[in-house]
Amino acid sequence: MKTMKIALLGCGTVGGGVARIFGEINPELNARANVSLVLDSIVEINPPAAIERFQLPASLFCGGGRLLQPDEASRYIDDLLASPEIDLVVETIGGTSDFVFDLCHRVIEAGKHLVTANKALLAERGRTLFDLAENKGVKIGFEAAVCGAIPIVKTIKENFTGDKILSISGIMNGTSNYILSRMQNESLEFGAALQLAQDNGYAEADPSLDINGGDAGHKLILLIKLAWGIDVSMDDLSIIGIENIGKEDIDFANEINAKIKLICYAKKINGDIYATVRPMMVKNNNFLSQVNGATNAVRVNNHYSGIHFLVGKGAGSGETAMSIVSDIVFIARYGERMKNTAAPQERIFADARQFVFPYLITFHTADVPGTTGFIATAIGNQNINIETVSHNRHTGEKAMFSVATMPSTFEKIEAAVEAIQRERPGLLLSEPKIMPILY
Amino acid sequence: MKTMKIALLGCGTVGGGVARIFGEINPELNARANVSLVLDSIVEINPPAAIERFQLPASLFCGGGRLLQPDEASRYIDDLLASPEIDLVVETIGGTSDFVFDLCHRVIEAGKHLVTANKALLAERGRTLFDLAENKGVKIGFEAAVCGAIPIVKTIKENFTGDKILSISGIMNGTSNYILSRMQNESLEFGAALQLAQDNGYAEADPSLDINGGDAGHKLILLIKLAWGIDVSMDDLSIIGIENIGKEDIDFANEINAKIKLICYAKKINGDIYATVRPMMVKNNNFLSQVNGATNAVRVNNHYSGIHFLVGKGAGSGETAMSIVSDIVFIARYGERMKNTAAPQERIFADARQFVFPYLITFHTADVPGTTGFIATAIGNQNINIETVSHNRHTGEKAMFSVATMPSTFEKIEAAVEAIQRERPGLLLSEPKIMPILY
Repeated sequence: MKTMKIALLGCGTVGGGVARIFGEINPELNARANVSLVLDSIVEINPPAAIERFQLPASLFCGGGRLLQPDEASRYIDDLLASPEIDLVVETIGGTSDFVFDLCHRVIEAGKHLVTANKALLAERGRTLFDLAENKGVKIGFEAAVCGAIPIVKTIKENFTGDKILSISGIMNGTSNYILSRMQNESLEFGAALQLAQDNGYAEADPSLDINGGDAGHKLILLIKLAWGIDVSMDDLSIIGIENIGKEDIDFANEINAKIKLICYAKKINGDIYATVRPMMVKNNNFLSQVNGATNAVRVNNHYSGIHFLVGKGAGSGETAMSIVSDIVFIARYGERMKNTAAPQERIFADARQFVFPYLITFHTADVPGTTGFIATAIGNQNINIETVSHNRHTGEKAMFSVATMPSTFEKIEAAVEAIQRERPGLLLSEPKIMPILY
Repeated sequence: MKTMKIALLGCGTVGGGVARIFGEINPELNARANVSLVLDSIVEINPPAAIERFQLPASLFCGGGRLLQPDEASRYIDDLLASPEIDLVVETIGGTSDFVFDLCHRVIEAGKHLVTANKALLAERGRTLFDLAENKGVKIGFEAAVCGAIPIVKTIKENFTGDKILSISGIMNGTSNYILSRMQNESLEFGAALQLAQDNGYAEADPSLDINGGDAGHKLILLIKLAWGIDVSMDDLSIIGIENIGKEDIDFANEINAKIKLICYAKKINGDIYATVRPMMVKNNNFLSQVNGATNAVRVNNHYSGIHFLVGKGAGSGETAMSIVSDIVFIARYGERMKNTAAPQERIFADARQFVFPYLITFHTADVPGTTGFIATAIGNQNINIETVSHNRHTGEKAMFSVATMPSTFEKIEAAVEAIQRERPGLLLSEPKIMPILY
């Protein structure tokens, strides 16, 4: 049996989970890989914390388990990258800094396989790394970068190979889903639910990337590359977070038998890819509406095999580590025969404003008779059919109601809103909220 | 690029779907396999029907597209098996007959890869075929044999390789799930729902294998072999079908916030495998309770990465064909490096009567005061705690109620029922129904 030696860079929540799995089921991993896998060394600036948390032997750590200065850690990394003994490097440091980018670049340049959970790096700066890997005949495993434990990367690359993927959608950020679930279940405002998420360890002190849709966007970019071979930048994606969702929106969702979810959505229409990340009104008969808390779910619609759902944990130590270890086993077993992503395609990324959905538009207006008719007429003037108009909530001199439309482009919805604002200045008390409805 | 030539035996619903996919996306398949895949020839006794249904060229068929006599078809099959040109054979004839078994045996004996959707054959007579394949260095693809479009075979073999599988459960028979869903939603008795299933093409004229749990059992046997390397026979499994489920059971399920589903369940406890197929009361907060109609769902509980759900179509032409084509791509790409199943393990299959569940027991009794107390006492005498006792339905001189227990072995539940029957002969008007409750 051949041997494959592995270096682990970073031993926090995810890296520590990887080391723990190797400590506990290395023989089983070897049998599955048909290769003798050896976790050779770990570089970590604070080994004592990792040793205690994950019950690891100090001898695994460069420096023997003592605290390392950053420059010392860098020298150990240099040694490992220079060593012909190391076949595969696991990067669990995270972030998109030049330091981490250069590190991954050097791993591949040195002809070593790279396994990483770093979605931000691969989504924002991955093109160079993937191209270099192709050049060097080196493999990049990134199962752990998309939806933690859910094996969506291998499912697209290896399991749906007899099909054509029509669309991918899903709930890919556990923190925002946890917040929306609590808002929904306990009738909370956004701020209170965020506080609960932080108190319960589901949101970090700085939760921006989770809440503003950035993290979900990174995952969607990787899935678009996998499914269709197209490189998309964060600027291309039309991303809206959940910061502005309030209790009133949850009420309007209930009124149309829907739940608000932060949805990643990408669809191929006549060869063009449309994609967006934003809160959507997911109808209760769509499985995604029933995915609560920190769980992730991916829905894939295939041409031949229809609709699939994959549901699992989107984050966590063992959860993310499992995906990393399964990548190591796959690379060890299948080596150079494995492919990194789909073959690059010519760029056909479409304007998300042309993406057709039914929409729910929520209006805050002055409480003036005839308002509903005026607004409904303005929408009709754009050739948009109306499905329902909600119960109107009157409070003092203000009114609030929502309009559910039949399928339309976002562009037309915007045009209707502009016409309303132009023709009756002052009628709308705030910018209307516009959310797609997902059946 | 290497070439791989494929022969297709049988061109009905599934085989025709395979031929159609090859006709439509062969270049994409080649790119994914990194091998030039050629569907060389099809043996089918009624080509005209297949040609019309799947829009296939007559030239693909042995005999040029005309009807074949069985002995003619056999000669064509002999020629293909003898031909060194053919690398892989897709068997979509089905059934467990000696004819099909011998055919598959000869395919492997001839050193050709075998891809099949034939769950009955592999579950009941697969051992010999898998052993021979190991011997010959030949691959058996059977993704399509378990839950149609759901890629659960590759998910266990290739995606969960960094984990330990603790349990597998799921809804693996679409026909019985369709019947139970209609009974549930429209308050129908079993017979009426079965008739609807037959009218709508969800059940065959002879639906026995779907309804008696046999088909689900075949799938569970294959998953147990995959996950833990253990060979189990149909006799080992404790299988109960849905024939005896009635409206009253659905009512009792509603009363404890559950839905009745035909559940496949296998769990590893202290190294022993417990497994069963039977109707269970699935609590509404378990995702499986929400899987309706002909959809299949598999729940995998992993040691490191927690609970996963895979949901998709369990049957159908394109659905099953997609899984077959993805097997062909995988075998072409990874060839001799692919493994067929988990390494065989020593047999540690446990007695399902020792399997611990909470149970719902439904009693039909004479309407005698003190009955509830007597029965509850008999259950308590077996050291089984009671969770709830249902509302008692009195009709004339009869009474009917159910008892939900805390977790217990099936053996103890049986002992309680025996004691009741022994101590008060005639009190029970029929054999109590005993169903596990799944949280």
